[in-house]
Amino acid sequence: MTLEEKVAQLVGVWVGADASGGGVAPHQTDMAAGPDWDTVIGSGLGQLTRPFGTAPVDPVAGARSLATSQAQIVATSRFGIPAQVHEECLTGFAAWRATVYPAPLSWGASFDPELVEEMAGRIGRSMRAAGVHQGLAPVLDVTRDYRWGRTEETIGEDPYLVGTIGAAYVRGMEGAGVVATLKHFAGYAASRGGRNLAPVEMGRRELADVVLPPFEMALRLGGARSVMNSYAEIDGVPVAADEDLLTGLLRDEWGFTGTLVSDYFAIRFLERLHGVAAGASDAAGLALRAGIDVELPTADTFGAPLIDAVKDGSVDEALVDRALRRVLAQKAELGLLDEGWQSLPDDVESLRLDDEPGQDLALRLARQSIVLLRNTGGILPLAAHRRVSLVGPVADDPMAMLGCYSFPAHVGGHPEHGLGLDLPSLREALGRIVPDLTYVPGCGITGDDTSGIAAAAAAAAESDVCVLAVGDRAGLFGRGTSGEGCDATDLRLPGVQSELVRAVLATGTPVILVLLAGRPYALGAEADAAAAIVYGFFPGQRGGQALAEVLTGAVNPSGRLPVSVPRDAGGLPATYLSPSLGHRSEVSSVDPTAAFPFGHGLSYTTFEWELLDADAADWPVDGEVTVGVTVRNTGSRPGAEVVQLYLHDPVAQTTRPVVRLIGYARVPLKPGESARVTFEVPADVTSFTGLRGTRIVEPGDVELRFGRSSADVRAAVPLRLTGAERAVGQDRKLLATAGVTPEGAG
Amino acid sequence: MTLEEKVAQLVGVWVGADASGGGVAPHQTDMAAGPDWDTVIGSGLGQLTRPFGTAPVDPVAGARSLATSQAQIVATSRFGIPAQVHEECLTGFAAWRATVYPAPLSWGASFDPELVEEMAGRIGRSMRAAGVHQGLAPVLDVTRDYRWGRTEETIGEDPYLVGTIGAAYVRGMEGAGVVATLKHFAGYAASRGGRNLAPVEMGRRELADVVLPPFEMALRLGGARSVMNSYAEIDGVPVAADEDLLTGLLRDEWGFTGTLVSDYFAIRFLERLHGVAAGASDAAGLALRAGIDVELPTADTFGAPLIDAVKDGSVDEALVDRALRRVLAQKAELGLLDEGWQSLPDDVESLRLDDEPGQDLALRLARQSIVLLRNTGGILPLAAHRRVSLVGPVADDPMAMLGCYSFPAHVGGHPEHGLGLDLPSLREALGRIVPDLTYVPGCGITGDDTSGIAAAAAAAAESDVCVLAVGDRAGLFGRGTSGEGCDATDLRLPGVQSELVRAVLATGTPVILVLLAGRPYALGAEADAAAAIVYGFFPGQRGGQALAEVLTGAVNPSGRLPVSVPRDAGGLPATYLSPSLGHRSEVSSVDPTAAFPFGHGLSYTTFEWELLDADAADWPVDGEVTVGVTVRNTGSRPGAEVVQLYLHDPVAQTTRPVVRLIGYARVPLKPGESARVTFEVPADVTSFTGLRGTRIVEPGDVELRFGRSSADVRAAVPLRLTGAERAVGQDRKLLATAGVTPEGAG
Repeated sequence: MTLEEKVAQLVGVWVGADASGGGVAPHQTDMAAGPDWDTVIGSGLGQLTRPFGTAPVDPVAGARSLATSQAQIVATSRFGIPAQVHEECLTGFAAWRATVYPAPLSWGASFDPELVEEMAGRIGRSMRAAGVHQGLAPVLDVTRDYRWGRTEETIGEDPYLVGTIGAAYVRGMEGAGVVATLKHFAGYAASRGGRNLAPVEMGRRELADVVLPPFEMALRLGGARSVMNSYAEIDGVPVAADEDLLTGLLRDEWGFTGTLVSDYFAIRFLERLHGVAAGASDAAGLALRAGIDVELPTADTFGAPLIDAVKDGSVDEALVDRALRRVLAQKAELGLLDEGWQSLPDDVESLRLDDEPGQDLALRLARQSIVLLRNTGGILPLAAHRRVSLVGPVADDPMAMLGCYSFPAHVGGHPEHGLGLDLPSLREALGRIVPDLTYVPGCGITGDDTSGIAAAAAAAAESDVCVLAVGDRAGLFGRGTSGEGCDATDLRLPGVQSELVRAVLATGTPVILVLLAGRPYALGAEADAAAAIVYGFFPGQRGGQALAEVLTGAVNPSGRLPVSVPRDAGGLPATYLSPSLGHRSEVSSVDPTAAFPFGHGLSYTTFEWELLDADAADWPVDGEVTVGVTVRNTGSRPGAEVVQLYLHDPVAQTTRPVVRLIGYARVPLKPGESARVTFEVPADVTSFTGLRGTRIVEPGDVELRFGRSSADVRAAVPLRLTGAERAVGQDRKLLATAGVTPEGAG
Repeated sequence: MTLEEKVAQLVGVWVGADASGGGVAPHQTDMAAGPDWDTVIGSGLGQLTRPFGTAPVDPVAGARSLATSQAQIVATSRFGIPAQVHEECLTGFAAWRATVYPAPLSWGASFDPELVEEMAGRIGRSMRAAGVHQGLAPVLDVTRDYRWGRTEETIGEDPYLVGTIGAAYVRGMEGAGVVATLKHFAGYAASRGGRNLAPVEMGRRELADVVLPPFEMALRLGGARSVMNSYAEIDGVPVAADEDLLTGLLRDEWGFTGTLVSDYFAIRFLERLHGVAAGASDAAGLALRAGIDVELPTADTFGAPLIDAVKDGSVDEALVDRALRRVLAQKAELGLLDEGWQSLPDDVESLRLDDEPGQDLALRLARQSIVLLRNTGGILPLAAHRRVSLVGPVADDPMAMLGCYSFPAHVGGHPEHGLGLDLPSLREALGRIVPDLTYVPGCGITGDDTSGIAAAAAAAAESDVCVLAVGDRAGLFGRGTSGEGCDATDLRLPGVQSELVRAVLATGTPVILVLLAGRPYALGAEADAAAAIVYGFFPGQRGGQALAEVLTGAVNPSGRLPVSVPRDAGGLPATYLSPSLGHRSEVSSVDPTAAFPFGHGLSYTTFEWELLDADAADWPVDGEVTVGVTVRNTGSRPGAEVVQLYLHDPVAQTTRPVVRLIGYARVPLKPGESARVTFEVPADVTSFTGLRGTRIVEPGDVELRFGRSSADVRAAVPLRLTGAERAVGQDRKLLATAGVTPEGAG
């Protein structure tokens, strides 16, 4: 291959599929205008960027358009290698008329990896059927600051939860034959002040113990074949130029053999935003040397500037070859180099991205993800005879169900095409069950217009119970209140929604506060004044129905908080995962205790827990211990309990989180039923990065705590890790294996 | 010496001097009750803790009490070694009836190291005269988060400003024969959420480039003989147990030979708060091994627990000897081991801690530290004929002038003794110049009582101009709104003061907003609505007079902001010292641009700047370059300009702050006068911690920018650093030498 042909395999072109079935067309971006199509594909083309997620195109027409272009690429270039096609897929295939699933915080809230795996499998199969080979998901960033707009894209604030759910997503996607892309590797979520791309202050120990484990889990337990760099600069080093991280750790230590793709424009950002490269050639060399194989979305620095750099000797062509081998190996694995390869299956006409089974799956996940935070006097589920008012701007907004990376929220701006989805709002869904529902919006999601608040309060006052729905609308770069580039300075509700909440609470009518949001909003006084509080984290296309079912009792809520819900709107960052001094202490007047802690969630039934004897009090540093509880549904409704296992390590050579999650199990139980829930816990899961910077299992006293949340411990097992300090590496055991054994009705 | 005698030299006892002239008495604390006095001194005693700063005692009586105890210690113990006596001294000798100087943020605002050195010399001499050998100042933490209550104790948010002013303080104190103690070494100011002692997330590069330089400057340029560890845990490692930092860096690399004293209770905190020690002996061993020589305030872990640990072999007695040698060497240096040593000079009767020269010095520094942020339509200085109203809770509170470590604010709780100071409030001081001043408080500094706001607004409405004074009252651990343990979740004014501000602004009467505070409070809408804004950072005992003089024009303001004043109350942390992505960017909806930037400050006169030719365009990486401006007072009043020199490094191997301060000069000029202000800048000051973690001067383009603030660049000199990348170490040049040459009237 010529240098030009090699480099062509390392770049993509951002395209939009053509609705009339012609070939895809280069999409103009503000970062780099695409050259004309024949020039682009003359030396071949490595990647096609977002053919479905750029503009609304009928799926069948889009798939055909893509196939047409692939045929051109194969025919035009010397080696006849098709492009690898990637698309976003965080909350479903990011295509018009594709089912939108709940957003990642909802996956976390479900504590149900199996269901997430099923969802990802379904998403992957629909992408594969449309000619897409790679999905740019999941996001494995561990939430560190709720102000960050992309908090909604994370699975939560605990590495074990993010890692196990994330690995499940990867298994589903990879199982469908689509390359899953782990992002954003690494450190992106910890930006200063929660501002997108702001510098990250972080030590290597926090990186190793909090940020990296989900990536290890998704690689080892999920088999992901691609990784995307993060935009972050950590302690002065932009990740896109960080050879230690992208090659030293990821390749050399972890043994990753897949492709490393750049986040969009990240290589050019080395010059334009980070100031560590003097120009495009310099940026390309830095990124390639660090370990980035593919530039996305569009040939920019990896185009002519990289070719120039190789020609003038400033970049070794062997680095180009290294990246090329990885790209071609993946294409071979995907069958793209096979004789007789074709872009589409023969039955493309039957391609449907939104159907009943998909929506049903979205509904099942939504039902499990709604979190009941508070329920005083059993006000929920709503009694059938009450006069119910519905208030709040998100109640009548179907978009309040969708995350930022859903097609409707992400692309937007095409009202003439409509949503392309049946997407009931809460008002619509609840109205099907509660026919006499009165609705008054009260205010907008944003803006400072308070003129509607009085009418909303009046409607609340005249009802027996008021459902008050507030929160976010997801969008990109300031077009929403949550999502990429939509950061917040504090956790007050957007616009004048807090005023609406205060006014409605002041009526004295019992208030069911519903939040549909992409981040936790501070619930201080509201937490104490609302009769009930229900939180939905962008529960997806059928989220309205799931919410309505939870409110009316058709579904018993079983979600658990994947993030804490703070009391104060300031004081950030503050997540549950912190050593003692990060929590309330006598040396600060500020008490950061959350209003509702990580892992919290109520049910309409009741559960009793009974601790089982542990199999030992001593726990060899290279051994396993089995601990368990019996959980019984002692109420009158079926329901699911989520048994959470936390590690408390009171004395260690470095400061340790007061508790951290090391296992969990979702346990559905009919009234009167019980189940034994056991965990086989390898000592490896107690490991952490010690003083010398290496991962160790440290002997000494620890406690395994069974909790209904991170703050509600129901039983504790004191144990002593015995033996000598033990180094553990990349082959350590990552999971506590949960076993749930039904015992029938007691 | 026996082990007991050795260890006795490594501990202190917290005492209070006796008002009747008897010996000092052990002070009970909640951390460790002192044993009885004879037992304490039986084996000798290394340190005496805070004999003056614990309760109000007449200075002469206190000095005698101390001398009595020293005589007992010398007489009772086998070797007759006096104790080393330490006291707080941040805003002056922390003793009753001692002059209170402006707080450190005011030192920073003055940009006047010479005056700070003079102040520290005066403070040191008064301490020495009272029998005190060591002062626990200065604080060299670089402000990283304004929510932190101890922000008022810092000199500001720039390492160069903190380092140069801090070194000046050290020179003054050490020049008086008193050991200066650098604190808090290191990393304390960057705690999560600004909560006191909360974990610090920080990489080694930020530590090296932002946090450590002031300590290097104060050691090399000031000659400090003691260092105090910080309470912080950085990336999981508590500093009190961090041998790499306390010994590897401080001793082995930097060559420090003085004593390292523990922050109060910090060693016990290794067990109780950080969870890295299993008990007191373990904590003592960790701290001693790491490099702490002296436990303060009281023998706790370095008492019996350390003796036990040495006896059982878990701590090497050689480590005790190492600390002992340092302690005794310092006592020898202080003359405590000299034949005929006595605690007090013969003329102790004449000891006065508060006198006219001291107050005059406090006044001169206060005058230079008041910052005029805004002055529309020349409303300031106040015209003599206007009807002036004074509003706001801090206006009539003399304590609003004092920082948290002043005796009155720090000790408190002794109202029967009174303040012991002539301490005019703003009301009193302004009233001397503006006789018909009407005053209405409006509200309290804290609390939610809004009942007085209407009356305050009415008073404002009836006047031609309203001086509205809001802000803080310093105190410890929740007793104030600023100070140690008094953290904030956001930057809204405490209590209902924001409501007062809005109500007074709404009257339409021109408002002079005066802030007397220990941190910058967010000035968003207020910044645009107030006619003028004046900021005082706890300007000390004569701060009321200085403020009144500035408001009325007797003094032309010349202070410059040592911190930024944000626009939004949230979004923290955010200081000026940040790479590009920490500032406003297109990838975040949040704009963190300050309302008033670091370095900003107005004058009643005007200045014109003219750039002088640089002596070269190329700047060898081991060379110096001279740059300069001519500054002319073009107005009608005498005034002082502060010429600030910033470095802009557009491309580097790691991300660099957009600008950082590398030099400054305060230039007093009469009307029509001008001066040449030049800086000899060694290339060393452009050095930073490169990719490999070592400090380098990197060749390439840079720009030296002359600014009236960090955001107001008046002239720029493009330069090219030439040569090969150059490693620099502990002997690098730290300063840009400023030269101010008066040129007379033009």
